Amino acid sequence: MTRIEKQAAEEKRAKERTADRVYFFDTTLRDGEQAAGVNLNAEEKLQIAKQLAKMRVDVIESGFPAASPGDFNCVQLISREVRDATICALARTREGDIRAAAQALAQAENPRIHVFIATSPIHMEYKLKMSPSEIMDQARTAVRLARSLSPEVEFSAEDASRSDPEFVVKVFKMAVEAGATILNIPDTVGYAMPEEFFKFCRAIIEGVAAPEGVIFSVHAHNDLGLATSNSLAAVRAGVRQVEGTINGMGERGGNSAIEEVVMCLKTRQDYYGLETNLDTRRLYPVSRLVSRISGVVVPPNKAVVGANAFAHEAGIHQHGVLVKRETYEIMKAEDVGSTPAVMVLGKHSGRHAFRDRLEFMGYNLDDEQVTKAFESFKRLCDEKKEATDGDIAAIISDEIFSVQPEFSYEFKDYSLSVGKGATTCAVTLNRNGTETTASAGGNGPVEAAYASIKRITTIHPRLERFKISATSEHSNAMGEASVVLSLDNVRAHGSGASTDIIEASIRAYVNAVNRLYSTAAVRKISLTSIPEKEAQLSAPR
Amino acid sequence: MTRIEKQAAEEKRAKERTADRVYFFDTTLRDGEQAAGVNLNAEEKLQIAKQLAKMRVDVIESGFPAASPGDFNCVQLISREVRDATICALARTREGDIRAAAQALAQAENPRIHVFIATSPIHMEYKLKMSPSEIMDQARTAVRLARSLSPEVEFSAEDASRSDPEFVVKVFKMAVEAGATILNIPDTVGYAMPEEFFKFCRAIIEGVAAPEGVIFSVHAHNDLGLATSNSLAAVRAGVRQVEGTINGMGERGGNSAIEEVVMCLKTRQDYYGLETNLDTRRLYPVSRLVSRISGVVVPPNKAVVGANAFAHEAGIHQHGVLVKRETYEIMKAEDVGSTPAVMVLGKHSGRHAFRDRLEFMGYNLDDEQVTKAFESFKRLCDEKKEATDGDIAAIISDEIFSVQPEFSYEFKDYSLSVGKGATTCAVTLNRNGTETTASAGGNGPVEAAYASIKRITTIHPRLERFKISATSEHSNAMGEASVVLSLDNVRAHGSGASTDIIEASIRAYVNAVNRLYSTAAVRKISLTSIPEKEAQLSAPR
Repeated sequence: MTRIEKQAAEEKRAKERTADRVYFFDTTLRDGEQAAGVNLNAEEKLQIAKQLAKMRVDVIESGFPAASPGDFNCVQLISREVRDATICALARTREGDIRAAAQALAQAENPRIHVFIATSPIHMEYKLKMSPSEIMDQARTAVRLARSLSPEVEFSAEDASRSDPEFVVKVFKMAVEAGATILNIPDTVGYAMPEEFFKFCRAIIEGVAAPEGVIFSVHAHNDLGLATSNSLAAVRAGVRQVEGTINGMGERGGNSAIEEVVMCLKTRQDYYGLETNLDTRRLYPVSRLVSRISGVVVPPNKAVVGANAFAHEAGIHQHGVLVKRETYEIMKAEDVGSTPAVMVLGKHSGRHAFRDRLEFMGYNLDDEQVTKAFESFKRLCDEKKEATDGDIAAIISDEIFSVQPEFSYEFKDYSLSVGKGATTCAVTLNRNGTETTASAGGNGPVEAAYASIKRITTIHPRLERFKISATSEHSNAMGEASVVLSLDNVRAHGSGASTDIIEASIRAYVNAVNRLYSTAAVRKISLTSIPEKEAQLSAPR
Repeated sequence: MTRIEKQAAEEKRAKERTADRVYFFDTTLRDGEQAAGVNLNAEEKLQIAKQLAKMRVDVIESGFPAASPGDFNCVQLISREVRDATICALARTREGDIRAAAQALAQAENPRIHVFIATSPIHMEYKLKMSPSEIMDQARTAVRLARSLSPEVEFSAEDASRSDPEFVVKVFKMAVEAGATILNIPDTVGYAMPEEFFKFCRAIIEGVAAPEGVIFSVHAHNDLGLATSNSLAAVRAGVRQVEGTINGMGERGGNSAIEEVVMCLKTRQDYYGLETNLDTRRLYPVSRLVSRISGVVVPPNKAVVGANAFAHEAGIHQHGVLVKRETYEIMKAEDVGSTPAVMVLGKHSGRHAFRDRLEFMGYNLDDEQVTKAFESFKRLCDEKKEATDGDIAAIISDEIFSVQPEFSYEFKDYSLSVGKGATTCAVTLNRNGTETTASAGGNGPVEAAYASIKRITTIHPRLERFKISATSEHSNAMGEASVVLSLDNVRAHGSGASTDIIEASIRAYVNAVNRLYSTAAVRKISLTSIPEKEAQLSAPR
């Protein structure tokens, strides 16, 4: 692009902003990933980012580069690979943060640096220990620096909803002067009530009286179940960017759920009169992708994307829907992409059909990855007649996303015997070409298997969560096991899949062990090891 | 109570209604149970009702007596056993429905009949095929009859939010004249936007200009994620009863979540200035009880009662919370009862400590049930050092709630061998004193076990859902398995627990089979049986 073309494109985008369109800023990979127990690797984040872009979210907040080398790398990877959305990176008002963000975003086509600092009395006094004028000065310097390094700068007044609106107006005016073009109003702790927040946002917007091309943004949290509603209240007040996550994933009660906000705007277009660019037919596949990868469940009664969102159980409702769908349905399942899949893959399905299916399900894999997944798929088809979407998802998460070459134990085999009162399991793992087998007893097969793995790995992490599910209609569906392990303040999620739930449990544990090691390596922590001898002395089995 | 005392008590309650207090009407057992895949038996409903009363909800909607004999029996049981809340039963405007409701409520101390009919053009025209004046007439007759049979009548204008407000006003005025004292405004399909709904409710309330003692109610659905917000908008407009369910359980996107609405009112007492009678410290235990019994998961990012509701992952947030809790916390975990349990039970714990724990966890068991559970607890303690709340909950759901004497298969034993490529499982079940063992192979232990069970029971239900979880920190925690089976349009949920996940899976399947039989019996359906010979010919294994 020439300089003139670039300028024209920028002007076009600035003009669009003031039109009656709501922009979606997805922070699944940044604020969403802050949820306790969630820990995504670079490949997983990239998969999600590609799907977000395909769904046409406007902005993808891809990480907080100064937080860790892992985050930095993810932002860099996504900046390079995802071209169809603005790529955003978070930074505190520190110079190091801003430079790290700019560097990580260097290859992005449309980069944005997102600078934040708190403006509420409680945050300024207790967390930052800074006076309002110090906040002003630091924010001004930060935004100026960010703008010198990035064509687009977003500024957030953290905990805005508990701040003095006059101070927020003052800070925002300064931010615009310093070069910010997106001004974000976060309800950081989910404290605001919708009507109160509407008035607050309106007061801010009127007070700032920003020049054309500047847009206001909302970032709501769901501590009291009001994130969607507060986002909409802000939109009514004039905000034109909504920040949120898929499935409302995030810390505590989570963030605003993008699927809910967009479906409110769409279903009630008559009320809001606003457009969005989002392809809502991709909401359901993206929701499932994020849930599978993050391990965060979507309850059946989740609005818009829950398994029951379009299910009618009561006789009265079923009758109504059969007579006229609109009696009990305000959205169509097709509009959010949750139509049940009709195509079933099996042993006679070819590579082409398999690849189509992967694309439909929201995966973007390269040829090598497709080949690897296809091989696993064929092996699965030897064991069962039909492969469901759940089966395929399990293969992908287990075979493609879980590779952590540096510290990888690989599951090879297990054997088990259960009789009256006695369970024994032997597990064989491979590490860098060396196979090790250990066996142990336990009260159940999983306990016995995990005891065997502890003997091999010599680490004794705490098992924080353990879950297995199979959503397909066959008992020979792939079981998907998911565990969370923690040791030495490192926490890792692992998943594993198999038609055999014991094998799935073992694979999940091994996957989590590998992630424990890689996270520990990034953080330069060495995990406490308890070799067999000590283990016999100290650990209850 | 004498007649005069009764009258005085009624007057007192009527007076309280007009005060600045919000009443909670819980419909977990009626509208909540309509969620697809949820199917609670009488004992389970009673347990939940007792806990709701203990939490001091004002009204418990216990069922829809005309819908099925099972529902009738549940309402009757709860009316007899639960004395500390108003017990409500649902009825259409038909005479049979209203008489069934009155009869089921006969033993309730404070009964309420809840009569509903739709008032929206789409429901009147397509579902009811009735004119507005026919609706008026039928509703008048119904409310009069209900009031002649019950001291308290609630009237709902179904799909009110899509109705002509003038018509709703007219119908409500008629309902008050006919004897209704609670007027409910449902957003049946979750279509309303908060500010619009505020204006709608205000117009209704002003239009009806009801006499003292009549209160307005809101019943919101969560299809677009706005149920909590719409409930609060209605409260702002003057509504004083909020209908909802625990965990927002319900059809499609669910109902308004009581835990969210009450915590909004409490956390923002400064904004609403309203009181409630609810003991919020019981929210978390009740949430867990409902989730365990219904099998409907609560995601970690669920507002107020999610596992992460009070978890802070990001370094910045942790720092803030350590310095001053209020920087990122607006509620205290203690306020909703989610403080982690400190007391650990083990093999040295006595019956008294065990009973205390059960009460803390929200169970109300009689002596015989406590004895039975305590025996299982002691057996568990032989297998593992410590028993967590999850372990105890699993025992209760498996041993106390799952008994279905009429059609009960009982799990006795299983054996399993897994080696290279071959899995074989033998299962022994007892039915009315006769033990039967069958064995089968499969791609994994669960498939093999389920194939064995099918041979014994001769029914081949479809496995709709399968899940195992163990939330405690030990791999020898009790695994809790949960399955949903369906056959011949009958659907049943089953759960099972064991330190061994294979055994838990078998127990869950057997439990669901028993429920399939009992539900089929109530509905007078005989389940399709495929004896061994036919099975060999027709069913893929």
